[in-house]
Amino acid sequence: MIMDELARQVKESSIKLAAAGTEIKNKALARIAESINERKEEIIRANAEDLDRSEKENLPAPLLKRLKFDEVKIADVVDGIYSLINLEDPVGKTLLSTELDDGLELYKVTCPIGVIGVIFESRPDALVQISTLCLKSGNGVLLKGGSEARETNRILAEIIIDAAEEAGIPSKWAALLETRADVNDMLKMDRYIDLIIPRGSNDFVRYIMDNSRIPVMGHADGICHCYVDEDADLDMAVKIVVDSKTQYVAVCNAAETLLVHERVAPEFLPGLKKLLDSKKVKVVGCPKTRALIPVNPASDEDWKTEYLDYKLSVKVVSGLDEAVDHINAYGSGHTDSIVTRDREKAARFMDYVDSGNVFWNCSTRFSDGFRFGFGAEVGISTSKIHARGPVGLDGLVIYKYKLIGSGHIVEDYANRFRTFKHRNLNREFTL
Amino acid sequence: MIMDELARQVKESSIKLAAAGTEIKNKALARIAESINERKEEIIRANAEDLDRSEKENLPAPLLKRLKFDEVKIADVVDGIYSLINLEDPVGKTLLSTELDDGLELYKVTCPIGVIGVIFESRPDALVQISTLCLKSGNGVLLKGGSEARETNRILAEIIIDAAEEAGIPSKWAALLETRADVNDMLKMDRYIDLIIPRGSNDFVRYIMDNSRIPVMGHADGICHCYVDEDADLDMAVKIVVDSKTQYVAVCNAAETLLVHERVAPEFLPGLKKLLDSKKVKVVGCPKTRALIPVNPASDEDWKTEYLDYKLSVKVVSGLDEAVDHINAYGSGHTDSIVTRDREKAARFMDYVDSGNVFWNCSTRFSDGFRFGFGAEVGISTSKIHARGPVGLDGLVIYKYKLIGSGHIVEDYANRFRTFKHRNLNREFTL
Repeated sequence: MIMDELARQVKESSIKLAAAGTEIKNKALARIAESINERKEEIIRANAEDLDRSEKENLPAPLLKRLKFDEVKIADVVDGIYSLINLEDPVGKTLLSTELDDGLELYKVTCPIGVIGVIFESRPDALVQISTLCLKSGNGVLLKGGSEARETNRILAEIIIDAAEEAGIPSKWAALLETRADVNDMLKMDRYIDLIIPRGSNDFVRYIMDNSRIPVMGHADGICHCYVDEDADLDMAVKIVVDSKTQYVAVCNAAETLLVHERVAPEFLPGLKKLLDSKKVKVVGCPKTRALIPVNPASDEDWKTEYLDYKLSVKVVSGLDEAVDHINAYGSGHTDSIVTRDREKAARFMDYVDSGNVFWNCSTRFSDGFRFGFGAEVGISTSKIHARGPVGLDGLVIYKYKLIGSGHIVEDYANRFRTFKHRNLNREFTL
Repeated sequence: MIMDELARQVKESSIKLAAAGTEIKNKALARIAESINERKEEIIRANAEDLDRSEKENLPAPLLKRLKFDEVKIADVVDGIYSLINLEDPVGKTLLSTELDDGLELYKVTCPIGVIGVIFESRPDALVQISTLCLKSGNGVLLKGGSEARETNRILAEIIIDAAEEAGIPSKWAALLETRADVNDMLKMDRYIDLIIPRGSNDFVRYIMDNSRIPVMGHADGICHCYVDEDADLDMAVKIVVDSKTQYVAVCNAAETLLVHERVAPEFLPGLKKLLDSKKVKVVGCPKTRALIPVNPASDEDWKTEYLDYKLSVKVVSGLDEAVDHINAYGSGHTDSIVTRDREKAARFMDYVDSGNVFWNCSTRFSDGFRFGFGAEVGISTSKIHARGPVGLDGLVIYKYKLIGSGHIVEDYANRFRTFKHRNLNREFTL
C-alpha cells in the first residue's frame, strides 16, 4: 500500500525533525519565504491553470475567489512566514522541574506531537500556513488540499519541501496527497499519524470523526450566540450583534442566534430589525420575538443550525440562566458573547457557558488565531481536550517527561530505604 | 434510555461544579475523608461480602488481594485525600493574558474538561482516588468498577456523593454504573461525556478505543525498554535492569525488553543472567544474545509483547541508533530508559525516543503519578495529545478563552480603522 509507505516515511522524518533546533527551523522558514518569492511566476501560472479548469467546470464564483492566488495573496503568505519566524519556538519549553530525590530530577518538556494529517479546502494559502506552522512546531505533515487547487498545491508543496531541505530539514517531513482515496487511506494510518485536522464542511468533518481511530481536532459546527442582557448598553448591543452576524457570514465564528432578555426585548428588537433589514438579514424568532417584530417562526431545528448566511434566529429569554441553558443545549461550544453592564453576570456567563470562547461586550467574530495574536492558526477547535478555541503553535505540541538519575531504583523507595523529596527546581531543562 | 438521563444529569451538575471555588471543593474532600473514617465498619462489612462471594466464585488469589479493602487501605485512601486537599487547584489558572487593543483583553484560563467516564478494575481504592481527583479538578464523573467489588463500590460511592453534597457540591456530579451493558451505553454518550479513561487489560482498552467516538486517555500496552549503552556503568545497569524488570512485574511500567550494546554485551549479559535466574526470570534473546548466554530464541512477537510476568526479551544492538529504532518500532510510547555515562548520547536518546517517559540512568518503574509528585494519578497515558505519561490533576483540565471588551467589533479592524496591539499583560484573570 503506497499510503502506508508514505506515512511511514513522514513519521520517520518527523522523529528527526522533532529534534531540530529553532535556528534550523527558522532558516528553513526564511528559505521557504524567499523561494516562494523567487518562484512567484511559476505559482501564478499554476494557479491560472487551476482557475481556467475550475471555471470550465463551473466552480461557483465565491470558490473561484478563494482559489485565486495572486501577487497580493503571495505577499500575504510570505509576510505570514516572516511573522512565524519571529514567534517563540513552542518546542523545548520546560513546563515543570522537580527534584524527586538527591540526583533524581524530573523535567516535563514540550515536544512536537509527531505527524499531523491536515485536510483543507480550496484556498492554496492554507497549504502554506499549515505546513509552515507544522514545520515551526517540529511536526511532520500530510497535506490534502482541494482538487480545484491541484496545480497550485503541487508547486507550493514542491517549493516548501525543497526549500526546507536546502536548509537541512529531512526531506520527507511533508507530503502532498491528491485524491479522495488518499484521504480514506490516511484515516487508517493510526500507526503513523497522531492527529487529524480537518477543515471543511460540517458533514465532511463529521465523516472524518466517525471514520478514524486517530484523534481529530477541529469543529463541525460553529453555532455562536449573542446574549443581550437586561443591563446591556443597547447601542453597544446593536453594534455587537450586527458585527457578529454580518461582518462576514460564511465563517464559523459568525453569530447564528440572538438571545434577548425579555425586559429589554421590546425596546431592543424593533431597532435591531431595521438595521438587519438594511443588511438583508432574514430573521426568524420564537413566539415572544414574533409578538414584538414581524418575523417568521423559528423551529427547534433553527436553534441547532449553522446558517453561514444572512439569517439570524432570535429568542426572548427570561434571564441569564435561560440564556446559558439554551447555549449549552443548542450551541456547539465554539464562541458565545454576553452584552451587559453587570460584571457579576458577565462572570457567571463566562463560568457557566461551556464553550471554548466566552466573550463579554464584544463581537463573536474576534475568535480567530490572528486576532488573538497567535500569528496564525491551524483551525478552531471545539474539542474538550488538548486544545480549544483558535489553535496556533501551542496546540501542535505535547510534552515528554525526562527523568535523570544516577542509578536510582524503585526498590529503595518501596523498602523505605529512601524517601521522595518532590522539591520544585524551577529550572529549565538542559543536558 | 436510563443511561442517557443519568449522563445528562451528570453533565448538568458538572457545569455547576466547574464554577465551584477551591474552598468548597476542599471542604467536600475533607468531608469525604471524615465520612469514610466514620463509616469504616460499613465499608469493611460490604467488602467482606464481596470477598466471600468472589472466593466462592473462585476469583484468583492476586485479584482477591486487590479486592480486599481493609483498615490499612482505608487509612491509605484517607491519607491520599488529605494530600489532594493540599495540592493546588488546577482550575482557574491564567495561562495567557494579552491586551488585543485598548480595553480588549484576552485571557486563557484553565477549566474542567466536563464529564469523565472512568472504567476501572477490581481495586476499590481506585474508585476513591479517581472520584476525588475528578472533584478537585471540577469534573463530573461516571464510575464503573469491577463487579467483584460491587458492594464495596456501592457504599464508597454513596459515602462520597453524600459527603460532597453536605459540603455544597451538586449531588449528581458523580454516578456509579454497575453492569457491562452500562459500559456499552456509556460509550455512546458522546453528547454528555467528554473523555473516557479506561484502566484494565490491553484488550479491554482497545475495545473501548474502537467502540466510542469519545476521546480515550490511557494506554493499551506498556512495552518498556532498558538500553544499556557501551558507555554504561555496568554495575548500575544491572541494578536498573533488575529493578525495571522485577520490582513489580504485573504493572505497565515494568521493562519487557532489554537492549544491550554489542561491545558490552559479552561482559554484561552473563552476570545479569545469573541474577535474573535467581529471581526466576525467564529470558529469551536474539541470535547474538544466544551466542553469549543460554536462553531460548525471541520471536518477532516477543518484541511487541507486554509480558507482565517474570520474563524478559533481550536484543544485542550495534549502538544507540539501532536501540532508538527498535524502541520506536516495537515500543508502546510508555517508558524507556538508557543507561550510559555519555551525556550527549543520553540527550539524543531522550530526544529521539518517541515515548511519554524517557529516562536516563534510572529504573522504568519510576513513571508513576505518586513518584512524580502529582499526589495521585488517574492513569498513565500513551496518547500523543492532551496528556502523556502519568496523568494527575493537570490532565483533567482544559481551558477557555475569555475575551473582555467594551463594545469592540471586528469591522473596525477589517476597515483598518483600528489595529491590534497584542501586548502581553502578564496578569491573572479576575473580574
